[in-house]
Order: sequence, then C-alpha cells, then structure tokens
Amino acid sequence: MPELRRDPIVGRWVVINTESPALPADFHVKPFEWKGKDKCPFCYGHEHLTPPEIEAISEDKRAPNTPGWRVRVVPNKFPALMIEGDLDKSGVGLYDISNGVGAHEVIIDSPDHFKGLSDLDDKQVEYIIKTYRSRSLDLRKDRRFKYILIFKNVGAQAGASLEHNHSQLIALPMVPKNVKDEVKGSRHYYEFRGRCIFCDIMEYELDVEKRVVLETDNFLAFCPLSSRFSFEVWIIPKKHLIDFGAITDEEIAALSKVMKEVIGRLKKVLGEHPYNYIIHTSPVNTDFHVGYHWHIEIMPKLTRVAGFEWGSGFYIVFTPPEVAAKYLREA
Amino acid sequence: MPELRRDPIVGRWVVINTESPALPADFHVKPFEWKGKDKCPFCYGHEHLTPPEIEAISEDKRAPNTPGWRVRVVPNKFPALMIEGDLDKSGVGLYDISNGVGAHEVIIDSPDHFKGLSDLDDKQVEYIIKTYRSRSLDLRKDRRFKYILIFKNVGAQAGASLEHNHSQLIALPMVPKNVKDEVKGSRHYYEFRGRCIFCDIMEYELDVEKRVVLETDNFLAFCPLSSRFSFEVWIIPKKHLIDFGAITDEEIAALSKVMKEVIGRLKKVLGEHPYNYIIHTSPVNTDFHVGYHWHIEIMPKLTRVAGFEWGSGFYIVFTPPEVAAKYLREA
Repeated sequence: MPELRRDPIVGRWVVINTESPALPADFHVKPFEWKGKDKCPFCYGHEHLTPPEIEAISEDKRAPNTPGWRVRVVPNKFPALMIEGDLDKSGVGLYDISNGVGAHEVIIDSPDHFKGLSDLDDKQVEYIIKTYRSRSLDLRKDRRFKYILIFKNVGAQAGASLEHNHSQLIALPMVPKNVKDEVKGSRHYYEFRGRCIFCDIMEYELDVEKRVVLETDNFLAFCPLSSRFSFEVWIIPKKHLIDFGAITDEEIAALSKVMKEVIGRLKKVLGEHPYNYIIHTSPVNTDFHVGYHWHIEIMPKLTRVAGFEWGSGFYIVFTPPEVAAKYLREA
Repeated sequence: MPELRRDPIVGRWVVINTESPALPADFHVKPFEWKGKDKCPFCYGHEHLTPPEIEAISEDKRAPNTPGWRVRVVPNKFPALMIEGDLDKSGVGLYDISNGVGAHEVIIDSPDHFKGLSDLDDKQVEYIIKTYRSRSLDLRKDRRFKYILIFKNVGAQAGASLEHNHSQLIALPMVPKNVKDEVKGSRHYYEFRGRCIFCDIMEYELDVEKRVVLETDNFLAFCPLSSRFSFEVWIIPKKHLIDFGAITDEEIAALSKVMKEVIGRLKKVLGEHPYNYIIHTSPVNTDFHVGYHWHIEIMPKLTRVAGFEWGSGFYIVFTPPEVAAKYLREA
C-alpha cells in the first residue's frame, strides 16, 4: 500500500509509492506514442483489459464488462491509492504519515476512441456528469473519505496517459492543502462579510462583463481575473451551491450544454491542445464548507511551468483573461 | 508594464502580461529545437544579443559586453517584471492588484554552451554562487523588493528555453504565497517549540540516515521524507542560517562542491534529465523570518504534473525518497 506523507512546514500531502518504487531506468522517457484504437482498454470489446467495472450507464440491458455501455467506471489499473484496509495515521519524526487508503477510479467518457467532450452529443455529456454525481454520492458513504476529487487530463502534456477520453476520480482520506486553502479563504470571507466570495466574484464579473465567456440561466463561464493559465475558464452555478454532489438533473442538463460549448470554443480558438479540468467542491464527512461554492476550473496547458512557479506559487500568464474571454466570447 | 494580481481566495499572486498579450496563434507549439552554439546569445562573441550586462565575473580585465567573462548577468530579454516605475498597489473588485515592478535577470553560468553544472570545475561553480549572493545583496538595497528568488531550469521539460546553462533571478515586490506558507509554518513551529523546524528535520535525518545523500562539515544533502518529486534532493547548511545572502566565502566553497557532487550523481543515476533548483531563503526588507533556514531544493522533472496535483496540491511520487537516496549515496 502506498504511503501518504505530510510536509510539516506548509502542510502539503504527498502519496509515496512505497511498494513498487519506480527505479531510475523507468524514467528514460520516450516521445509519447498513443497506442490507437486496436489496443485501447477503453474501447468496446476490450472490457477485459480493465479491472471489473464499478458502474456503467447503458440505454439497453447488458451484462457487466461487455460492450453496449455509454459511460463506464472502472478502478484505475495503476491506482495512486487503495480502497481496502483501515485508515492508519501516525507520526514519524516531525512528519504525519498515513497509509494510502482511498479510491482511484477511471470514468470512460464514451465508447468513442477519438471524440473529445465537445464532439459528443448533449445526452452523452449529461451521462458523464451524472456519473460524476453518482460516484461522488456513492463514495462519500465511506466515512473514511474527506474529499472526492473529479478531474480530467486531456493530452500527454496535461498528464493523460491514454488517448481515449476519460475522467478520473480520487477519494482522499484527508482534505488536501489546495482545497483547505480555498475552503479557509472563503469561510474567512463569509464570516467577515456574511456573503459568499464566489457569489461576489460572479456579481462583479457580470457587472464589468469583460471576462465573461457565456452566461445562461443557471451558469456563468468566465476567465478569472487572477487566472494562473492562459485561457483558463471557470464554470460556476449562479445559485449559491456548496456541494457538487447535490446537483439536480435540470442543472446537469444545463451544465452539460455549457461544458460542451466552452470546451468547443477553446478548441476552436486554440486548436487541439492539452488541458485539465477539475471540479472544485466542498469536502465531505466534515463540517468544513461554510461559504464555499462549487465550480469547475478548466486549465489549458499551453506553456510549461518552470522554476519560478515552483519556487513562488506565482504564475506567469501570457494571455490576460480579458483578451482570452474576448476570443472565447466571439468564437 | 505587466500587472500582478492576487486571487482573493487563497492569496496566490499571478503576473499578467497585459501589454503584449500572447494570442492564440502563439501557442501552436512546435517540438522543441535548440538553436545550437552559433546563434546562442550566451556564448562568447554574442554579447550584443543580450541587453547590456548588469555585472560579470572575469579573471582578466575586459570591457563590459565583450568576451572574457566567467559568469555574466544580464536583464532577461523577455522579463516577467520591470525594474522601472513606482510600486502601485490598488484594489479592483475583490482583488488586489499591483503593477509589475520587479527585476528579472539571467545569470549565464559559464561561457561553455554545452556544460552543465556538474561538468564545470569547482572554481566556476563558486563564481556562480558568488554571483547569486552578489545579486541578492545588490537587489535588496531596493526597498520595494520583498523577495529575491534564484532558480535554474534545465531542459525544455523543466521550462528552459535556451540550451546554454543559465540561472535566473526574480525580485518581487511581495512575498509570494509558497514562501509565506513556508515562513509561517516555520515561525509557528519556532514559537511553539523554540527551535528551528529545519534544524530538527536535519537532526532527524542524520539520526535515521536512510534519506541522507551526503554530509560534509557544513552541509547536508538529503531526499526529504515528503518529497514532491522522485529524486528530489535538498541541500541545507548545518548551521541555523536564515538568509542565503549572508553566506560566507568559505561556505560558498563548500556549497559549490556539494552542489556539483549532488547534481553529478543525479546525472549519473538518471542520465540527462530536466530539473529545476530553487534557493529557498528568507524574505528581504520585512521582518518575516524568525525560525526560517535557507536551503536549496533540487527537483528532477521526470513525470508530468496532471489534474490530480493541480486540483489538490497533492503530489504522486513514484520513487520513495529512501530508495532515491540509496541510489544517490551509492552513485
């Protein structure tokens, strides 16, 4: 089982693969080569190449681990964390250590090897987001888990290791540092002003307009004033909603359209490009979430992060969000 | 002039290039191609290709901006921040904004286009570190600056845009979030226990030995227990020293040997690989630094950072530091 370790200085946790350590020879990196459809473990007919499925959406009756699904969820074959075992926390020297209890799942977005999210039909995108909700609600029943992180890596530069579009979910036994920072920051604001900081940001952006990408009845898509990445876009529900898991079917239908549209416009403006998106939501099985507001952050990976960013937590952004938003509005 | 903007939620600052925004077409990334020696702005005879030099070390008399130097410091041709102008801070909506006053300098490590730090002779490495000290002491005279970040990117994957080995320095008008976290964490520990957390970590590592890479009279090199990257190494002075700028000539001579040795061993174990190193030191022109302890963090970039890390601040480490240290001890 891997080990989780916390840096005692800034409170950052890491997952250490103590069991099958990568050795130096494992890092002789070859230029990235996609395997193509024939050997893809996420294509129809190859269901035996993944661990047995956890759940799936299909329109017709089917046996588990056979073709015919629309969205399919499987355990990650190379999980960062393990679902079995008791959570075991201890101290070593100055450090806090925990064993690597958690879940690491892969959500296969669609049976189509080549289609990205913006190429899918609305219904399919709804299936994906419904699956996100369903996994989030299922995993939080396990009281060991304090945070459920849902994200997507597209393209080798953004960390994807398979071409077939998929999302990932990691359930963690502690609230990670970045989320804690966000939750703390928004709670502090809430306690001081009695308002949600995300709602206030939204109101401000709707007022000044220049960073808005698109607005619907339920959602706002905008390039945040302090973007870390060029063409970064946030999608946020206009109602003050703390927990992504509480999203309704109607909201899912609306969100699917917005996601598809924004990702389609990014592709139109930037061409095929590597990106990540991450669902930011409140922790689960804790009482941490006053003043939080769930949202999705889409981060194109157009430049490399270098020593400056690592050393400081500063990011150099080459395209101001006002410029990016203009492109995305007009796309 | 670029703009600095602070995220009001977690306190993260970004530099926004408002003046010459990169447009979508600028991001159609080509595979990386080094230009070679002939067109290299850092090679002898090409001094006119850089902005005029700020300082240089040479063993013989020479005119500025001519060959004959051993280490040469020039302003970055594409600076993230600008040295001229008054610092101007303001609030916009919920955000804190500042103009991009700062310094961004390039330290050309040696005249040799191809040599990495571990290929240079001891004297040359001393010249480099003396230059770091000299620039740090010079720039802090400017009371606008609160932090001086010195770092190195080697290899395209680690963010280097030129092949000829060089270091960079960025002077910032505020203490960046990562440094603040570190300074706060170590001060908290100091106030509670009356001891430096870095000294305590060092004592612990010397005691258990298994993560030690090498130890000299003045310095310890070790793989930190909560490494974020495989084969991450920290080099730390054994004396409790807060400020890198106060390093003595004797300490520089000792540090040069350790740096050269550690980077040489990493190369021996991993082959040519992309990496960053960063000098972590106390802020300047502030009173922030009780309980801090300067050190150098070397971070090989052997895997890509993906959505999980961005979303959580968690890092997945494929080689436990105990394993990495064993390789580096025996190299």
